[in-house]
Amino acid sequence: VTVRAGIVVTGTEVLSGIIRDENGPWLSEQLRGLGVTLSDVIVVGDRPDDLHASLDFLAAQGMDLIITSGGLGPTADDLTAEVVASFAQRPLAVDPDLEERVWAIVARMRGRWRDASEEGMRAGARKQALVPEGAVVLEPVGTAPGLVVVGDSVPPVLVLPGPPGELQPMWSAALDTPPLRALLARAGVLEQRIMRVTGVPESELARLLREAPLELGRLEITTCLRRGELEIATVFEPAADGDYASLESAVVDRFGDRVFSRDGSTVDEIVAGLLLGPPVTTVAVAESCTGGLMAGRLTDRAGSSAYVLGGVVVYSNEAKPAFADVPAELIASVGAVSPEVAAALADGARARFGAGVGIGITGIAGPDGGTPEKPVGMVCVCVSTAAERIERTLQLPGGRATVRDRTTTAVMHLLRRLLLAGGAAEAA
Amino acid sequence: VTVRAGIVVTGTEVLSGIIRDENGPWLSEQLRGLGVTLSDVIVVGDRPDDLHASLDFLAAQGMDLIITSGGLGPTADDLTAEVVASFAQRPLAVDPDLEERVWAIVARMRGRWRDASEEGMRAGARKQALVPEGAVVLEPVGTAPGLVVVGDSVPPVLVLPGPPGELQPMWSAALDTPPLRALLARAGVLEQRIMRVTGVPESELARLLREAPLELGRLEITTCLRRGELEIATVFEPAADGDYASLESAVVDRFGDRVFSRDGSTVDEIVAGLLLGPPVTTVAVAESCTGGLMAGRLTDRAGSSAYVLGGVVVYSNEAKPAFADVPAELIASVGAVSPEVAAALADGARARFGAGVGIGITGIAGPDGGTPEKPVGMVCVCVSTAAERIERTLQLPGGRATVRDRTTTAVMHLLRRLLLAGGAAEAA
Repeated sequence: VTVRAGIVVTGTEVLSGIIRDENGPWLSEQLRGLGVTLSDVIVVGDRPDDLHASLDFLAAQGMDLIITSGGLGPTADDLTAEVVASFAQRPLAVDPDLEERVWAIVARMRGRWRDASEEGMRAGARKQALVPEGAVVLEPVGTAPGLVVVGDSVPPVLVLPGPPGELQPMWSAALDTPPLRALLARAGVLEQRIMRVTGVPESELARLLREAPLELGRLEITTCLRRGELEIATVFEPAADGDYASLESAVVDRFGDRVFSRDGSTVDEIVAGLLLGPPVTTVAVAESCTGGLMAGRLTDRAGSSAYVLGGVVVYSNEAKPAFADVPAELIASVGAVSPEVAAALADGARARFGAGVGIGITGIAGPDGGTPEKPVGMVCVCVSTAAERIERTLQLPGGRATVRDRTTTAVMHLLRRLLLAGGAAEAA
Repeated sequence: VTVRAGIVVTGTEVLSGIIRDENGPWLSEQLRGLGVTLSDVIVVGDRPDDLHASLDFLAAQGMDLIITSGGLGPTADDLTAEVVASFAQRPLAVDPDLEERVWAIVARMRGRWRDASEEGMRAGARKQALVPEGAVVLEPVGTAPGLVVVGDSVPPVLVLPGPPGELQPMWSAALDTPPLRALLARAGVLEQRIMRVTGVPESELARLLREAPLELGRLEITTCLRRGELEIATVFEPAADGDYASLESAVVDRFGDRVFSRDGSTVDEIVAGLLLGPPVTTVAVAESCTGGLMAGRLTDRAGSSAYVLGGVVVYSNEAKPAFADVPAELIASVGAVSPEVAAALADGARARFGAGVGIGITGIAGPDGGTPEKPVGMVCVCVSTAAERIERTLQLPGGRATVRDRTTTAVMHLLRRLLLAGGAAEAA
């Protein structure tokens, strides 16, 4: 039995692109883990009619569950509880106990704001305590309570707040409510597997899928190019496990070590694992055009202080000799954007920080600064240890942000190669 | 006359949250500029029935225009042209000239990939040249052509490719097609204004809107908290210009200099403008817990090399004395996370790089490393010039990524204050 769900994300600020929706993707992942098939994510503004129409649409599509995010705040443009009550044909009333609990939270936060008025905050708390008759209340994580609203002839609606920091902790409480427990008991289990490939065009994968003697009928395969990598995501019922195994073998046979992940792990995770060892390998960065993003990406992960010693952002030409020991003569002779300077940056970062691995990055992120010989998007990167060095001169497509981001991805892959080679050398 | 549009974003990889949709927000902004009201953004997977149902829904909602993004690639899961042809009841056929143009592009790209086969790429080009009868073809930017499909009893559908780098350049060509020109001629003009406020709770703004003697009926006001700032976006017809002016005055009267932007400019833009002067003020960073993100944020902007000299990521305690002249005794006596060390980092960055402004950041991003005295989320920041210094000890909510990101926002606001004060001093 398939359980299908639809998500409605509310908020003019999301619809208008002012803020990005993080809840659709997160909920999607949670639902997949529970064997629920997600059909649609609909983003609507703060117009009640549009929200109502999208609920009606999802109900008409035969959804077993609708999840809303957002529109539970204290301001007048937050209308979700009201619209869902109307959709489920349940009258709305203030829950006085809930109002007090919300007020207790709001009152604690008052100190954080200069001259916030009690009266305004009281009115907000009362609005946030409006509950459709018979709904299950999910206790607030921020100030907004969530709701599970069950109507007579419509699918149950799980009403969650918009801030991801509130929505995510509320999710497990929602799963524990009787309406959702009953629904999820009906859901089957779907497997989801992800392979990641670097340096392969999408059309080559398409050809493999067309031509290889594979049973693909029971596999839902999606391929996408993302940050320069090709991701192959496959969803299937457990009975199709053998079909997936054949697909995986065919992809690995065809593309070899360009398939860098078979378990969905990202190159960042793989590199972090390799650096953590044991033994731990430390790393330091000297970067120019990425301006700190390489070090920022390496330190994204909790626990990265175990292996990241630090970095230097040598944005000006004067900074390259001063902070990474790049000889000024070298810059003068071959130019700041050159494989030689990238190598000197990597070696300099390693020496200055006393790290096991050094990373050097120098390039032209654009939009200005390109020349016919060294166009925008040309980036020289190098990763080095005392024993080994891998250099690449990249020519990256796209605008400034893309060039900077793709550079960090390319360096992650070089790090992976360097660390795997080092491990092999050690084992030999 | 209001012209209404809906957007359908296709792709299981977007629906499942593997990649983020950038096209909905971008198209939303373009439509707003043209006076078109966007009602819904619907994300569906690569199931043809779901795409068809969402087109039917938007048509039933009375949309004047539907825009799709994605599903135009060479692989079998790319089905948009086929589904839109069925929706508009137009037969689909290969356009042989278009096929040759697509093939010419694909053939040029072949060299980028190891062992890509001509046959696979040929089949892909043929698929991408399938055009519904009577549709206007938009020339490919990548390899995928776009389409404007006009049916008899359905709204026109603008079919665009998924990659933002292809969709965005194709947009102006799309606006220049007869069906879209006709439609846009009917659209009115809507004004959009944005104010940005820091340090004000949403409920206080709500109270102001409730209590102030303002005419708000013709203003569509949306407020949202974003990266710790409050954004007030208002859309209105030109006739309501005076109402908006009154709203703006009321907000500025009430919140004073916490209203840091009245023209929608971001704090990043404001700081960049202040640094550019004239005269130019240079800046350098010494950062610990943000791990490069502060320098990365400062260098996000094209032209930032005019004022960013560089930075050091002093992630380890040994790096702080070595790269930013923080006395080791100071770290030993007051701890690495302290206002004193933040100030020493700012001064050290300034001195080492010879910059006009130094930024120092040290804190506990979590999830580990917190203590009762110095909990996760405590971050000490400092911005300094030779003459002035502003320090703050922040206690930020949220997880590691949020703490790191909010820290950079807080520093941007301190930079703004420091630079405005400097400017005032100069003028005096």
